[in-house]
Amino acid sequence: MKRRDLLGAAALLPFGTALLPAPAIARKGECPGTGDLGLIIERATGSVLIVNTSHQEILGRIEGLGDLSHASVVFSRDEKYAYVFGRDGGLSRIDMQGRLMDRRIIQGGNSIGGAISDDGQLIAVSNYKPGGVKVFDSATLQTIAEIPATWEGGQSKTVGLVDAPGRRFIFSLYDAGEIWMADFSDGDSPDIVKIGKAGRLPYDGLIARNGRIYIAGLFGEDGMALVDLWQDPLKVRRILDGYGRGEKKLPIYKMPHLEGWTEADGMFFFPAVGHHEVLVMDGRTWELVGRIPVHGQPVFVMARPDGRYIWVNFAHPDNDTVQVIDTMTRKVVKTFKPGRAVLHMEFTPRGEQVWLSVRDANRIDIYDTHSMERVKSLPAKSPSGIFFTARAHRIGL
Amino acid sequence: MKRRDLLGAAALLPFGTALLPAPAIARKGECPGTGDLGLIIERATGSVLIVNTSHQEILGRIEGLGDLSHASVVFSRDEKYAYVFGRDGGLSRIDMQGRLMDRRIIQGGNSIGGAISDDGQLIAVSNYKPGGVKVFDSATLQTIAEIPATWEGGQSKTVGLVDAPGRRFIFSLYDAGEIWMADFSDGDSPDIVKIGKAGRLPYDGLIARNGRIYIAGLFGEDGMALVDLWQDPLKVRRILDGYGRGEKKLPIYKMPHLEGWTEADGMFFFPAVGHHEVLVMDGRTWELVGRIPVHGQPVFVMARPDGRYIWVNFAHPDNDTVQVIDTMTRKVVKTFKPGRAVLHMEFTPRGEQVWLSVRDANRIDIYDTHSMERVKSLPAKSPSGIFFTARAHRIGL
Repeated sequence: MKRRDLLGAAALLPFGTALLPAPAIARKGECPGTGDLGLIIERATGSVLIVNTSHQEILGRIEGLGDLSHASVVFSRDEKYAYVFGRDGGLSRIDMQGRLMDRRIIQGGNSIGGAISDDGQLIAVSNYKPGGVKVFDSATLQTIAEIPATWEGGQSKTVGLVDAPGRRFIFSLYDAGEIWMADFSDGDSPDIVKIGKAGRLPYDGLIARNGRIYIAGLFGEDGMALVDLWQDPLKVRRILDGYGRGEKKLPIYKMPHLEGWTEADGMFFFPAVGHHEVLVMDGRTWELVGRIPVHGQPVFVMARPDGRYIWVNFAHPDNDTVQVIDTMTRKVVKTFKPGRAVLHMEFTPRGEQVWLSVRDANRIDIYDTHSMERVKSLPAKSPSGIFFTARAHRIGL
Repeated sequence: MKRRDLLGAAALLPFGTALLPAPAIARKGECPGTGDLGLIIERATGSVLIVNTSHQEILGRIEGLGDLSHASVVFSRDEKYAYVFGRDGGLSRIDMQGRLMDRRIIQGGNSIGGAISDDGQLIAVSNYKPGGVKVFDSATLQTIAEIPATWEGGQSKTVGLVDAPGRRFIFSLYDAGEIWMADFSDGDSPDIVKIGKAGRLPYDGLIARNGRIYIAGLFGEDGMALVDLWQDPLKVRRILDGYGRGEKKLPIYKMPHLEGWTEADGMFFFPAVGHHEVLVMDGRTWELVGRIPVHGQPVFVMARPDGRYIWVNFAHPDNDTVQVIDTMTRKVVKTFKPGRAVLHMEFTPRGEQVWLSVRDANRIDIYDTHSMERVKSLPAKSPSGIFFTARAHRIGL
């Protein structure tokens, strides 16, 4: 069986060193391009895999990145370096071509993600302990600015940190319930703009529409906070108030990340919290216009880059399942069970394939997004996040 | 004067060889990334420049590419190779890291542009003489398929060739007035789908909305042809019928390319043919909803990647001027005169800078798109098209 052969091959590959050696010397013209590379988080072992999406192969493994639970990754604008934000405050820079970790700092005690400025010069990290945001030079990882995010209750945890056009970063203050902007357009000393009150306990944020719209999710209220960055002055607007109201909620096994939102065909598709539904919001009016019944509580709701189909994974105990929604009919057209703990999905830049991490099977599954058939599997140790270098060119990732 | 210093420095740089030598040996970890590279057409001399957008510098010049009038460029999915389509039927592959031409074929007598499939494996070229489309293996440049585009009048010239998701190419038949699709989803023998009648003399096409919408411009009629690739069966719909009707047209100095269309804030902004106007079409209803008076006959109408501002250049005799339109107010907010014959513009992937080719000044001008100030100039011989590697990751370029 093709399927068993692939899995068998996977089990034979060794763990602990680079699977393919990096070239010690690359002659003129033999350097690999970096547009088709990617990085996969192996959470349990504090390691990452470097992969190639043209040949669907693993190029190497790098260890020693510390606690990678909820790790996230951004890429330098030349797509040569990955910056990995660890939960333990570690910020590691990976050379994707040399297949090595060339710099690493511990920048805080407990951190929750980061962003890179549009010009590629600034790396910002949002921290839990102590709170606030720190900003580093992307070339040296030396500190450029510290933004303590101080409010009446002390130094707030920060969440939902994203880049916006013009050397700006937007983030939310979990404890203070506010949305702030750090504007580095005049150099390395930022203007800090307190945009406004978001609501109780913002827990994550996303930027949509190529950098125009910032949306924060709220843990303490039934609604969301939106900032239109094209408006002057900037202000917070409440949307989707009571969008879960009136129905009995299921226990919430996993608070969906807002990275799990997607925009397609002028609509936002996103996970309902505590319901077996994908919600649909009109991108012009910000009104809820649809609810799509799905298999479990959605975690990531991700449109193929052309927007034609939307792939959805689920929280425990339904995280063995993936469903595909047709954007036009808003109906589930395919359901399959790759294996236990499908944690993340990443489309290739033009969307012809999607890579899934199947944690408990120690496997990456690669699907053709048109046939919706699996074309290949690769071995990985408890894989979680998958990040391709094409993210370097996108705003707000 | 800062401006004169830059121009003075430009004049001193030699022509005829690589300006900076490519590294003969790159050691481990020293390969450059390819995400921040670009290629600039030097039409008069049949040469191209390789540039870096992070440091705003010229890395080298490659000669011997033949007739580069109306040349266009696509990139391999690893962003290592550029494929340059020359007017003389030449198809040249440039190694962006090695800074050399590693393959070149003459595939037809007279060609007008090409495209690369979403999986990066197929290069398609649309030809004038003989007509039809040829498809090549991107790795070897060996022929994979020939599509003669035969109609009752013989072999039609083909124009407006673009890639669509799922190893598909869409193109228009100039003589036959039809829109066709070549579908390679089942392998290297394409299904040819004759989608329908476009109207008289389609002269160019574009794909919009991440691969969903194909639009062909008509030379022989006052209107456009649209195909929604999400519809089944595929069919041609006419839009903007008579959009120039009722007003006296000016002489047309240059038929605007449809690459000069842009979508921002749910609207299409595009050049009026024969008028000093940028037109605005609602992207939901396909109705014309606005006309923006500008300095001359627009050629390229290009949105900054976040959509906030739109940069416009113009046809002779107004091609010394560039204007910037505010997407929200739809008014010109800035007018400047970089020099004679501003032929093309290309934004950096996340939009913080824009590069302009100023042909008659033998100069590339680089602007900060937020301050709208020039930050640097680079020397080039009669530069025209500018193409950055980030195009590799986008559908329909």
